[in-house]
Amino acid sequence: MSETPTGDLALRAAALDAADGLGKLRDRFDLPEGLVYLDGNSLGALPATVPGRVTDVVAREWGELLIRSWDESGWWTAPERIGDRIAPLVGAAPGRIVVGDSTSVNLFKALVGAARLAGRTQQRGSGERTELLVDATTFPTDGYIAASAARMTGLTVVPVAPEDLPGALSTRTAAVLMNHVDYRTGRLHDLPGLTAAVHAAGALAVWDLCHSAGALPVGLDEHGVDLAVGCTYKYLNGGPGAPAYLYVADRHQADFDSPLPGWNSHAEPFAMIPGYVPADGAVRGRVGTPDILSMLALEAALDAWEGVDMAEVRAKSLALTDFFLECVDAYVPRGRVETVTPLAHAERGSQVSLRTANAADTMKQLIGRGVIGDFRAPDVLRFGFTPLYVGFADAERAARTLGDICG
Amino acid sequence: MSETPTGDLALRAAALDAADGLGKLRDRFDLPEGLVYLDGNSLGALPATVPGRVTDVVAREWGELLIRSWDESGWWTAPERIGDRIAPLVGAAPGRIVVGDSTSVNLFKALVGAARLAGRTQQRGSGERTELLVDATTFPTDGYIAASAARMTGLTVVPVAPEDLPGALSTRTAAVLMNHVDYRTGRLHDLPGLTAAVHAAGALAVWDLCHSAGALPVGLDEHGVDLAVGCTYKYLNGGPGAPAYLYVADRHQADFDSPLPGWNSHAEPFAMIPGYVPADGAVRGRVGTPDILSMLALEAALDAWEGVDMAEVRAKSLALTDFFLECVDAYVPRGRVETVTPLAHAERGSQVSLRTANAADTMKQLIGRGVIGDFRAPDVLRFGFTPLYVGFADAERAARTLGDICG
Repeated sequence: MSETPTGDLALRAAALDAADGLGKLRDRFDLPEGLVYLDGNSLGALPATVPGRVTDVVAREWGELLIRSWDESGWWTAPERIGDRIAPLVGAAPGRIVVGDSTSVNLFKALVGAARLAGRTQQRGSGERTELLVDATTFPTDGYIAASAARMTGLTVVPVAPEDLPGALSTRTAAVLMNHVDYRTGRLHDLPGLTAAVHAAGALAVWDLCHSAGALPVGLDEHGVDLAVGCTYKYLNGGPGAPAYLYVADRHQADFDSPLPGWNSHAEPFAMIPGYVPADGAVRGRVGTPDILSMLALEAALDAWEGVDMAEVRAKSLALTDFFLECVDAYVPRGRVETVTPLAHAERGSQVSLRTANAADTMKQLIGRGVIGDFRAPDVLRFGFTPLYVGFADAERAARTLGDICG
Repeated sequence: MSETPTGDLALRAAALDAADGLGKLRDRFDLPEGLVYLDGNSLGALPATVPGRVTDVVAREWGELLIRSWDESGWWTAPERIGDRIAPLVGAAPGRIVVGDSTSVNLFKALVGAARLAGRTQQRGSGERTELLVDATTFPTDGYIAASAARMTGLTVVPVAPEDLPGALSTRTAAVLMNHVDYRTGRLHDLPGLTAAVHAAGALAVWDLCHSAGALPVGLDEHGVDLAVGCTYKYLNGGPGAPAYLYVADRHQADFDSPLPGWNSHAEPFAMIPGYVPADGAVRGRVGTPDILSMLALEAALDAWEGVDMAEVRAKSLALTDFFLECVDAYVPRGRVETVTPLAHAERGSQVSLRTANAADTMKQLIGRGVIGDFRAPDVLRFGFTPLYVGFADAERAARTLGDICG
């Protein structure tokens, strides 16, 4: 590997970085010097505001104020407050997103909720809606949780390849669970078009935004999505295992019937009465006491989005992945890798997946040379491009290092 | 209020503190000077090891090692590792407790799991076991979640006052959910006796340990408890909203069938295969990606238990609450407060609840004078005694301040 990148692509990268309006946002993150970090689609980098905030939460809010912080430090309202900060990043109005629990737990709420909403709205006398259609290439937990939600609500899971979804919809469809971006291939699915198709079939559309939120515009309200979930530790940089979120469309909020009606979702939690009365709005998606340390770290992490335009993020993401693919083409001997991620912009998320023989070992070597991506069995290298802190020189160096290893 | 406590009770308190073998453990906590903190039954104090550990997790494990920390920093195995550290505090062998999610979410797993276990074991041809008996005075979330679990498994919730439980058990009972210590009154229920009665009726016993774990011996394995849950932010001092835990008895682990089969509970999570195959052991109770910041803060907090004998904790707890009641009797004008907590040691947890007119305002005044307890609607003052960092002088000052306010 040439230590001083003076080739055409390196010069192009430098020019692209110099012209990049988002380039200065890298200063909002604490990233180790000299590391090319292309795994922000798995665990986002540490935003610079987080360490100080966490220290204050632990030492002062917990250590000194103790129990008083539930009111005085705003702990109690954190789940809906932070939901409102995520909302503009995924195109939702305030009051529609609540933060807390893991993605899997929120999926369970969303899918049971969708099954119950479908049960309410189906016309009497018409055939029953008994099917839950699930993206057959989904991240595994979505499939496992869908099976449990279906088992507990009397639905049947029907796995469907995303491209076959329109043809699989019918009057038997109760709800559909899709991933906005496929975790393995990086393929972006057509959220507006598929949501419309699901609605045309009289069913509910539930979207998993784990691999799209923070990487590209989502437009939950605009496209009429019914329910959605997502994690906050990938492109939103909330920290390892940071709490996930649940979106419930305005029109469904009054009828949303959670399978996890914990006391935090009660209309009057501190009345501590035996009868459950659900709160209005996003709060209805809460369950138990929120994990404050993780939650307030996430809140601080969202400062990194101050003033950021998601359209600009998307433009840079596509430019980065285009440029990375061009560099791979130039540096990696022909036939050594196969691009799994679609080349069409409309079908590409913010990662590039390359299929190669001996992928696990190749990724180990890349990491050893300071280029961090990840490996997904059996043969996929994943490179995530997070526009807030990854630049074009990073893309060039990653491809050049890969070329060296494969050369 | 006399500023220099020189009375008999103050002298007694000083002598008791001087003789207290656990008194030196207060140095394991960062507590504000001059504060009497009697709300550790709601949010435990900050253990001194936590701030440094959290700083390291954020800055080095997340910020520098990034994604590599899932392996290199032991993040992935934290839920079962920390479960094994809680285990001896509640009388469980290793491999039976897993940490993660909120108490409410774990209750849902435990109750649906119990309903399914009851369904497996009931004799064919015998009457169906259709009832889920629930402590009628339970913390509200237990009742709400029990109702949801029953609804989704075909059971019927039957609320039962704890003293009526033995008579309510029948061949219709599938499972019973009880609180080890009542959150409002501080009453300790007879876990060994009630568990035996539940078993004699052929049903499963599920216990909520939120208000007993860390305050007194529990003996989960010894007494044959079937399933249990608890939080870690009260007597275990794990921090605000720290993850809860789930206990599954050894004999039930192979058949435990979780309603939340997230990918973290899969036998091969990184195979990322569509079919769900549950892991063996406590890991089967995991769901999604664990909230690492909250979880590792809890792990550090458990250092405070190093070398602590729970029998000694229990002895001090009873001595503290006895002494507090004696001080209340001496300082508070007769008829102004009524003791709700049982006087019999066998029926007392580690808190004292006093009923009084104008309880909310009385607690506000106490807090204003540096004595923190809490208020539970409509008329209860709660004072939690956490033997690791509360002393006899604290108890004396709290009672004396209360006497002043009520005088």
